[in-house]
Amino acid sequence: MNYKKLDKLTVLEYILDVNSVMSYFGEDELQADEIGDGNLNFVYKISSLKDTQKALILKQAVPYLRCVGEEFALSRERMNYEIRALQKFYSIFPSFIPKVYHSSESMSLVVMEYLDSHVIMRKGLLDKVEYKKFSEQISTFMAATLFYTSSLHLSSSEKRALIDRFNSNVELCKLSEDLVFSFAFMEHETNINMEDDENAKRLFLDMELKERILELKYKFMTQNDALLHGDLHTGSIMINEKEACVIDPEFAFVGPFGFDLGVLLANFVSSYVYHSVVSRDDEYREWILLSIKEFLAKFQAKFLDFWSESKNSALLVDGYMDKAALEAYKKKFIRDVFRDSVGFAGCEAARRVYGVAGVEEIRGISDKLLRAEAEALVLKIAREFLMNYKTIQNCDEILEILRDAR
Amino acid sequence: MNYKKLDKLTVLEYILDVNSVMSYFGEDELQADEIGDGNLNFVYKISSLKDTQKALILKQAVPYLRCVGEEFALSRERMNYEIRALQKFYSIFPSFIPKVYHSSESMSLVVMEYLDSHVIMRKGLLDKVEYKKFSEQISTFMAATLFYTSSLHLSSSEKRALIDRFNSNVELCKLSEDLVFSFAFMEHETNINMEDDENAKRLFLDMELKERILELKYKFMTQNDALLHGDLHTGSIMINEKEACVIDPEFAFVGPFGFDLGVLLANFVSSYVYHSVVSRDDEYREWILLSIKEFLAKFQAKFLDFWSESKNSALLVDGYMDKAALEAYKKKFIRDVFRDSVGFAGCEAARRVYGVAGVEEIRGISDKLLRAEAEALVLKIAREFLMNYKTIQNCDEILEILRDAR
Repeated sequence: MNYKKLDKLTVLEYILDVNSVMSYFGEDELQADEIGDGNLNFVYKISSLKDTQKALILKQAVPYLRCVGEEFALSRERMNYEIRALQKFYSIFPSFIPKVYHSSESMSLVVMEYLDSHVIMRKGLLDKVEYKKFSEQISTFMAATLFYTSSLHLSSSEKRALIDRFNSNVELCKLSEDLVFSFAFMEHETNINMEDDENAKRLFLDMELKERILELKYKFMTQNDALLHGDLHTGSIMINEKEACVIDPEFAFVGPFGFDLGVLLANFVSSYVYHSVVSRDDEYREWILLSIKEFLAKFQAKFLDFWSESKNSALLVDGYMDKAALEAYKKKFIRDVFRDSVGFAGCEAARRVYGVAGVEEIRGISDKLLRAEAEALVLKIAREFLMNYKTIQNCDEILEILRDAR
Repeated sequence: MNYKKLDKLTVLEYILDVNSVMSYFGEDELQADEIGDGNLNFVYKISSLKDTQKALILKQAVPYLRCVGEEFALSRERMNYEIRALQKFYSIFPSFIPKVYHSSESMSLVVMEYLDSHVIMRKGLLDKVEYKKFSEQISTFMAATLFYTSSLHLSSSEKRALIDRFNSNVELCKLSEDLVFSFAFMEHETNINMEDDENAKRLFLDMELKERILELKYKFMTQNDALLHGDLHTGSIMINEKEACVIDPEFAFVGPFGFDLGVLLANFVSSYVYHSVVSRDDEYREWILLSIKEFLAKFQAKFLDFWSESKNSALLVDGYMDKAALEAYKKKFIRDVFRDSVGFAGCEAARRVYGVAGVEEIRGISDKLLRAEAEALVLKIAREFLMNYKTIQNCDEILEILRDAR
């Protein structure tokens, strides 16, 4: 089918021909509402007239950046990678991914489960909800998806086939390269709130820090460890107290192990800073610290668990090494992944301060003085991460950095 | 055109339809001779009857490993990557690549310049020829081809397009992964001369060393720095005292900067060991040491020169860093490339001892005791390389390792 942008009415015509969607709704009469307020795409809720909880989501990419308009071209092929990533993650760990009922690369759209009992995690964290199962859930999802899409599990040809499926996600990878690692650390027209800001001036002149960021950018661009979500912040997680679900993997590509972990860590740092500066809720801050420690520690343990079940892979030929040497190698390997994730967290946390894409916890603070305080705190933590990531030993050191930064 | 394997006669029929080849020969009557004794492919010399120096080479891949026979399947698509690499290298530095007159991916063949005044460099080194221009030549070729196919020069989308062109060279990458990094360091049916060999036993139990090799294998598989030749030993270089030409890039893929450098260094080590143990020619050994030092040092200087002319790339946005910081970053970057190349040289040198693909300088030594002496010397040097590559500072340390190893 040739691409055309759907609207509230043509969405309903389109799904008439999609058996998997029609069999979900049965004989019900349907309605469609546009519900998305996303930056990139159009999102419709399609629901049964007589039971609006019986619903699916249709998400369609348009060939421009929705929040700016048609003059900011952005190829709709990004939806191909979102579809492929959803399918791949679903095949590895279905319970953390919305169920996909239909997808079409030619129409740049996907129809999937409507998560009505979940909220965006970023909002939940602002509202001080303690998601007690989250560290267990996300560590499983990340350990499984990263391990099973890496050369530690796949064969050499399977790994290359995986790269083939995601290598051409050119525009969104370039967006990350520019926005996460470059523009937010220099005078740039896309930056926000940097005028007359002493912290911004200091940041832009901090060459020691920027060298670290450049090293990590190079790693981001050239290190093909595993299939990443590519944008795993707390706005890409739908959650309630029982379940967590990962959405919006349009930035997916085969990149360095530590990146998704780092992005998530950085977004927890933003939340920690918000609750240090704005809500000043010590108890909730401690819950955030505990969650950080748990998800990073559990990730490492689970990753090693998955690895222990795998005998042959692109990397390892059974019998190459004795058991003790192999265990030592694996421990060193996962420690290096952990270190990189701390470095990437430094980039992600810092870029949210002046970069075009801010986070609600910091940029959303309306009181100017408080916002400045929060920004300074984020930058301080990010700097500690970046200057220490190559030698950091364990999760406790991360908590120390966060506690000492206040 | 559908693929069919050519022979002495059908080769001449095939080129009748190829204008670029026919215009090279004009009205001359032609003959074809099979001249290849390669492991993988069939090679024909097509020449004018009245002037046999007026000649071209036609190289065709068959869907099996020629030296074993049809029972060892190896997809003929490897020729696609050889053609693409020849074209890419030629576009960057034509004087080091045989001129291609015609290529066909569907027929898995390439027609190229006949290098009649050149010899295979490995043979020249055995014959103690001092190629005085070689370090200058090869350092230019490698610095240019590696730099201009990397994220230090290309844009983000150009780099991904390059990866697309080479990512599916699956079988030959897998061969390298197995043969350079795995099988030669463990009990394996493909190994040669390892029975009752004390050095082999010691090597296979040397877990400290094998951990280093595994780290480098992981880097080989996942680090996408630049387009590599992939098999740049002295048998892939045609040379005389004026010119050097790089051939046979069928192992080409986008991989780590240090690999080609390391392979070349290792093959110079084999030659050094041969002239230490067999010919015992001190003067020639010194020439080899000088060449090693020169090509590694010149490579680094030229790479930095190319880099200094490049302002914007996937990695660098103009204005991101001040000049001094950028210079420091680049120096560190090239030092790390150098270090990796020493590590890769350790793998390549050592794998030639018991691995299935030996080198003439070592495996070709007919005297068993001398061969054992040479093997021990190679292994000693390779071990020094591997145990020290992460901290090695400069080329002189490499020469020290070689001198001290005797």
